[in-house]
Amino acid sequence: MDFIDIAKTAKRAALKLADADTELKNKVLQNAADKLEQNSKTIFEANAKDLEAAKQLVETGEITPSIYKRLKLDENKLRDMVQGLRDLINLSDPVNKVLLRRQLDEGIVLEKVSCPIGVLGVIFEARPDVIAQVSALAIKSANAVILKGGKEAVNTNKILFEVIKSAAAEVEGFPEEALQQIFTRDDVAQMLKCDGLIDLIIPRGGNKLVQFIKNNTKIPVLGHADGVCHIFVDESADLEKAVKIIVDAKTQYPSACNSVETVIVHKDFPYASALRDTLIDSGIDIVDTPRDWHHEYSDTVMSYLIVPDIDAAIKHINTYGSGHTDAIITENKENADKFIRQVDSAGVYHNVSTRFADGFRYGFGAEVGISTNKTHARGPVGLEGLTIYKYNIRGNGDIVRDYADGTKIFHHKDLPL
Amino acid sequence: MDFIDIAKTAKRAALKLADADTELKNKVLQNAADKLEQNSKTIFEANAKDLEAAKQLVETGEITPSIYKRLKLDENKLRDMVQGLRDLINLSDPVNKVLLRRQLDEGIVLEKVSCPIGVLGVIFEARPDVIAQVSALAIKSANAVILKGGKEAVNTNKILFEVIKSAAAEVEGFPEEALQQIFTRDDVAQMLKCDGLIDLIIPRGGNKLVQFIKNNTKIPVLGHADGVCHIFVDESADLEKAVKIIVDAKTQYPSACNSVETVIVHKDFPYASALRDTLIDSGIDIVDTPRDWHHEYSDTVMSYLIVPDIDAAIKHINTYGSGHTDAIITENKENADKFIRQVDSAGVYHNVSTRFADGFRYGFGAEVGISTNKTHARGPVGLEGLTIYKYNIRGNGDIVRDYADGTKIFHHKDLPL
Repeated sequence: MDFIDIAKTAKRAALKLADADTELKNKVLQNAADKLEQNSKTIFEANAKDLEAAKQLVETGEITPSIYKRLKLDENKLRDMVQGLRDLINLSDPVNKVLLRRQLDEGIVLEKVSCPIGVLGVIFEARPDVIAQVSALAIKSANAVILKGGKEAVNTNKILFEVIKSAAAEVEGFPEEALQQIFTRDDVAQMLKCDGLIDLIIPRGGNKLVQFIKNNTKIPVLGHADGVCHIFVDESADLEKAVKIIVDAKTQYPSACNSVETVIVHKDFPYASALRDTLIDSGIDIVDTPRDWHHEYSDTVMSYLIVPDIDAAIKHINTYGSGHTDAIITENKENADKFIRQVDSAGVYHNVSTRFADGFRYGFGAEVGISTNKTHARGPVGLEGLTIYKYNIRGNGDIVRDYADGTKIFHHKDLPL
Repeated sequence: MDFIDIAKTAKRAALKLADADTELKNKVLQNAADKLEQNSKTIFEANAKDLEAAKQLVETGEITPSIYKRLKLDENKLRDMVQGLRDLINLSDPVNKVLLRRQLDEGIVLEKVSCPIGVLGVIFEARPDVIAQVSALAIKSANAVILKGGKEAVNTNKILFEVIKSAAAEVEGFPEEALQQIFTRDDVAQMLKCDGLIDLIIPRGGNKLVQFIKNNTKIPVLGHADGVCHIFVDESADLEKAVKIIVDAKTQYPSACNSVETVIVHKDFPYASALRDTLIDSGIDIVDTPRDWHHEYSDTVMSYLIVPDIDAAIKHINTYGSGHTDAIITENKENADKFIRQVDSAGVYHNVSTRFADGFRYGFGAEVGISTNKTHARGPVGLEGLTIYKYNIRGNGDIVRDYADGTKIFHHKDLPL
């Protein structure tokens, strides 16, 4: 099938899916979870093929050992995947929520009701668990989705997708064509041009992938290219908390987007040298004059800056940061509040690690990714970020002329939801 | 000043403005309203200059009489403009609203707090009242704004902008550089390229302007290019309501984006010929086989289609419409609900005129325009559509390692807002 036909099919299915009720969507999630368990043997066989091919690519240096590791789907990962689907069943349906109900005048009622966005295009790198997670989020939020996974995981992605799609097809009334998968770069190139049919692109992967997509489409893109996160150690910071938080934010998972890249220290923080020594002892490399303050190390390396005051710290973060997640360590509540108000990032924290920026940790149940956008959705994006709304009015023959000429006037009375 | 310096200045001011309290913003609105009244003579003089120049352009056919009419700023329009500013003072502040408050674990509290988007670029055609309206919305929502008006209104736009900006400058602590004005096409071209500095572009004008902007920027664009609105007259429609609503939707303001372009009639509607005759008698031209079903007449002309059933009507609307506003006229509640659920538009109505699609009529107090986007904001966009949010966490030295290794677990308890 041509990509344009895939996109048109997805769009038709999206319009049907928008009208599906919660029970129907949950049935599909339940069936998909069951079928993933039942087909575990076939899934592991497909994954073994990908791993075999990838092993050679690691040897020739074409892929890194960490990509190889993420590619591997073991029993634990499959169990988590299945549990993720089951968890979504219990989350409240994000669609058809009445967000506003207002009587405009006697007999005319306006409602703002949440609804799906339409067709999502999701492009991701090696991790095959994304297939299940994103398909499930799309099903629950009633969006059609076109998935493109990394070529290293092609066999695993294919079988996972087939199992989930066949589970959807088995549930009567569910438009299983809302789930689509593509495989080639050419398909992706076409998808990026389909601004009439695709409503939102979600790239999950490295900076290069995200930047390429942002530069090559007019479709809204949800995600983040960089994660240049900062921790500011204020004059009154508690040394113990500073050490604990910075070590966690830098070493607990150095390649995560929410790990810290730059530590900024107030010039009058009395324990600066003790802090530095302890960080170095914890295995962190400190770079004092980085060529580029907007740099994501993705390793146990970080930039280090001394500033004269909190304003300079905030200015540095708003200038060189990526608007992802930044934290202040201080015992001064006023400074904490100021930092939280003035730093323009998706997550702004006081006395906690930047690593908390995550949909599961926020209690969203699941996430499609973290957004540094300034519109639509910012920070970890769960089900709610995959919805928009429409306005409905129910009346009885009402016309605008009566209000334009003053025969009638609006009274705008909010009604209970 | 180069455009890039204007944009950088606006961005710096935006960061300050984000931290302004409600009282400060309201003071500026109050002062701007007062100063517009005090300077009415100078404003009318500037407008007279624009009108004089425009009169010649009407004679040579370079601008239409309707543009000339919109250009004129009389005492009534100025009074409305001033009232619009004063009305905004009473609207609740859309910024710093706590949208979610959740205890992640003992001592760790997550908050989702509304905040401004940043820097808005607003490009509009002849109507000079947009300057005051959009500046006021930007001030109240704490966004910086760069305004580019139509060249026909250049003198009026200049004086209005100067009065408002000087009113902002008089209020101590308000970063008046958040208000910027540009005049040339070259500046607009540069603005469209500034995706690091401008966060949202709002075009207000005809299809060509909006389409041009959408095709030439990577910055999110909020608005609508077309308003191809439909009214479906169902089998059980009440003839009187159908006539009243269609006449209103087509003739009350034919060039409005929410006026109807296509009437779709169920084949078994028993009063179809009476309906047609009455519409024609009301001065509406009916086009039975338009070359293009996606056509906005902006005149008392409309397309007319007979369909076998409601499904065909919904399909036609979802295929040829512009996702703006569509209505069903029916006495069958089930069909009304089905139409409202299945039509994928910003406004979907039952037994009321499509002309109701408007921020003032919805009770939003003011609007920056109507959006047909599927992300961020859809339908009439008021103050809320000019905000986004950030997530704050306040803790006491908390780290992710404790949760990753199972030492602690999240309990995710929502707290009162």
